[in-house]
Amino acid sequence: MSTEAPSDAPITDAPRPEARGPRGFQDRRGPDLIAERRIVERVSAVYERWGFEPLETSAFEYADALGKFLPDADRPNEGVFALQDDDDQWMALRYDLTAPLARYAAQNWETLPKPFRRYAFGPVWRNEKPGPGRFREFIQCDADTVGSDRPEADAEILALAVEGLTAAGLDRDQAQIKVSNRKLFDGLFGAGGIDDPAQRLTALRAIDKFDRLGWEGVSALLGEGRLDESGDYTKGAQLPTVVISTVERFLASAGQANLSRADTLAAVAGAGDLGAAGEEALKELQAIDAALGIMGVDQTAVRFDPTVVRGLEYYTGVVFEAELLLPTTDDKGRPVRFGSIGGGGRYDDLVARFTGQSVPATGFSFGVSRLAAALRASGRDPAGEARGPVVVIAFSDADMAHYLGAVAELRAAGIAAELYLGRAGMKAQMKYADRRGAPVAVMLGGDEIAAGTVTLKDLDAGRRLSQAVSDNAEWKQARPGQQTLPRDQMVAAIRAILEGSSISD
Amino acid sequence: MSTEAPSDAPITDAPRPEARGPRGFQDRRGPDLIAERRIVERVSAVYERWGFEPLETSAFEYADALGKFLPDADRPNEGVFALQDDDDQWMALRYDLTAPLARYAAQNWETLPKPFRRYAFGPVWRNEKPGPGRFREFIQCDADTVGSDRPEADAEILALAVEGLTAAGLDRDQAQIKVSNRKLFDGLFGAGGIDDPAQRLTALRAIDKFDRLGWEGVSALLGEGRLDESGDYTKGAQLPTVVISTVERFLASAGQANLSRADTLAAVAGAGDLGAAGEEALKELQAIDAALGIMGVDQTAVRFDPTVVRGLEYYTGVVFEAELLLPTTDDKGRPVRFGSIGGGGRYDDLVARFTGQSVPATGFSFGVSRLAAALRASGRDPAGEARGPVVVIAFSDADMAHYLGAVAELRAAGIAAELYLGRAGMKAQMKYADRRGAPVAVMLGGDEIAAGTVTLKDLDAGRRLSQAVSDNAEWKQARPGQQTLPRDQMVAAIRAILEGSSISD
Repeated sequence: MSTEAPSDAPITDAPRPEARGPRGFQDRRGPDLIAERRIVERVSAVYERWGFEPLETSAFEYADALGKFLPDADRPNEGVFALQDDDDQWMALRYDLTAPLARYAAQNWETLPKPFRRYAFGPVWRNEKPGPGRFREFIQCDADTVGSDRPEADAEILALAVEGLTAAGLDRDQAQIKVSNRKLFDGLFGAGGIDDPAQRLTALRAIDKFDRLGWEGVSALLGEGRLDESGDYTKGAQLPTVVISTVERFLASAGQANLSRADTLAAVAGAGDLGAAGEEALKELQAIDAALGIMGVDQTAVRFDPTVVRGLEYYTGVVFEAELLLPTTDDKGRPVRFGSIGGGGRYDDLVARFTGQSVPATGFSFGVSRLAAALRASGRDPAGEARGPVVVIAFSDADMAHYLGAVAELRAAGIAAELYLGRAGMKAQMKYADRRGAPVAVMLGGDEIAAGTVTLKDLDAGRRLSQAVSDNAEWKQARPGQQTLPRDQMVAAIRAILEGSSISD
Repeated sequence: MSTEAPSDAPITDAPRPEARGPRGFQDRRGPDLIAERRIVERVSAVYERWGFEPLETSAFEYADALGKFLPDADRPNEGVFALQDDDDQWMALRYDLTAPLARYAAQNWETLPKPFRRYAFGPVWRNEKPGPGRFREFIQCDADTVGSDRPEADAEILALAVEGLTAAGLDRDQAQIKVSNRKLFDGLFGAGGIDDPAQRLTALRAIDKFDRLGWEGVSALLGEGRLDESGDYTKGAQLPTVVISTVERFLASAGQANLSRADTLAAVAGAGDLGAAGEEALKELQAIDAALGIMGVDQTAVRFDPTVVRGLEYYTGVVFEAELLLPTTDDKGRPVRFGSIGGGGRYDDLVARFTGQSVPATGFSFGVSRLAAALRASGRDPAGEARGPVVVIAFSDADMAHYLGAVAELRAAGIAAELYLGRAGMKAQMKYADRRGAPVAVMLGGDEIAAGTVTLKDLDAGRRLSQAVSDNAEWKQARPGQQTLPRDQMVAAIRAILEGSSISD
């Protein structure tokens, strides 16, 4: 591409570096990569059909623009990969796609269509301790609407998330989005006289642990504090007992399985005094329910669930969490959780961080690898029956022209094909074709070339027959799935094999 | 996605950061982004049809694995974005896709199909001074064959590059790949008694400037040295006059326009003593020419040109440079250059840096933005006639159900559509529809809803007519491209408009 001048360092004298990728980063290839690409393609098609336009921001942002919204990020730049530019400004790789969107929207607000619907996918980076299945770089896919305070905007994001997950390959009953509203707690705390923001935040953090700790652990963390199994003591939110009781009723209010969205709202409203903010939250959820109904989103695909809090502090209203429901059940026959595959909510203050001007926004995000893993766990491989190319075998240097001609003819006919370009013998080449997942091997030996013929080996048929025939000697004689035919019938015959037509042996 | 706990920093009290992206980075949106995506899609389809499989490596590599192959990279980590991991190891963002491929191939050599054909696209990062059109992050797209020393592998890469550029949208006569072989200079220097590697490198750097400086400048740099316009003196390679003369004859040997590949090789062979390495280089180029002929790559799409050197030091044999030939001509009627849009070559020692074991490799790379710019310069916009979604106008909060129903119906019919979700009036909504590039605005006012009808506004027809009709008052009365029809005919009528059928006013 560029016209760089060579540098002085000779290659050969340098000490040999070890061939390894950095800790916590992965290389992706083959079916895993194809699966992720198919997810992104299918979801993008849905998002564009819903009027969300693509946007790609840069990998780096200025550190102050990213803000400190990562968990446990007490030190500056904790949790992100940051470096100082030559003008001494700190830059960091984005840790999600929401912070860059807020920066972009603030920067371009005047010229954007408003409301601004955009989707984005791409890598994000987290400077965390790597672990099994825990990577420091992964692909996220987000859809957001910036500049609409309407509950219909939230409902649209939810309906879009359902449609996107379905397009990616999940059955409608394999995923569920649980929805709540941060303002329910604002109202509940307000009515209980809890006004200290720090105390509220500690209480919210406790409630966010409901899934893991159950009510017993949460109530301890809402009150005095909790001693965990390891002996560590966590100081609690010091809420009065009466407020803790309201929270308990509130969280339990929608505990029955399969409540409709409207019934959940009724149960929540009956749990106690939710204050003005809580009443507003209920109205928003009612409007969302109505819009979801019109858009045909059924009661199991999107549920209301007051236990959903979402950790990120920038959410200001509706919050949602998408869960995979594996078709496995516990001993009582109830579905068992695979866990979260995405989430989102309303963040009305994120653009105002830059401009001071309030710009309401709402969105949904999922991790592409996580969804691919969920699809595999549910028995669907989005990579499907991805096949390798037809492989043309190279017998002799003198006949390269014949091989090249065959492979060019196949490619021109739209058939994925390649010529073996190594220097190994026949056996290694057949192994190569197998590793490549080739459906057919094309053999143009000296005899075939002299006779104007070609031999095709249907490798799938060969694999099937080698399982079916027990006598190995007999099998070898039979040359399963192999046929010799006039050279000018090659393309048609291969097309027939690829289309699943069986051939006579 | 994740279940982060909230952090303590309140949003609202923080000082306001400025909304701007880091210097030298860009956000991409709209037609520019769509154009780049189409290029990547089309080229990927070709690369897969040719048996190249996708690979995505991580953004980071260990600094020692990347190596110091960037130009002017004298200080450690110069030219790259590097940072120290918490275990003190230096990591850097990849500056191209070749170095990570070499690392990946070395790391996984045992389990890879050999030869290993892979393609890749994705961002690369250069820590350079930003300038107009010069970005520090850009998308590259590469195809490489690792593990084949056959000239047919080089020929395949060249034929693939031609087919890829054509698929991206360039006419066959708009791009040309110029090919040479580093070993020609190895042989020429060897025959001239120039054995010092540093002296050879200085000479190669000088020859690499042929395009910019012409023979006069190059000959000064091959000899004593050169004083440039700014008064800076560059010390030369100190070659003997007789060797400089040979280089001159060599570079001039293929100066005639439109020599065939075979004729170029004959002219080069006649330029002087090319030594053993030079003879080997000629044989490789002859084999490449033969393979290109079989693959139907014509003489103008891929030419041999001995002035091509390529800056990157890791090339060991064949080198190529892809140029856009704009359909503009100079005063002698000859095509004028747009410049390089890609390049590549053979790099047989890059995997051996890690393993010590020689693994021959060859590949081609282009910059996606650069190619998009080239396409625009040649009068083709790969984004084509990309249209926005149908926009449903929101008249009244009370009728949201009707709007939501219409937009859901359009999306279900596969028509990109969206509901205006802001709170502005009719005029602002029509401006919004215009900014979104909407082909149709759907209007469900109170009258329409009561009558069971819908009004559709063909915005393209409106734009055409507003240009054709001079009398503004008359135009307004005519309501061009607007029709009211039964609500249940909405989808069919919009489909007719989208398919270009005109409607009666």
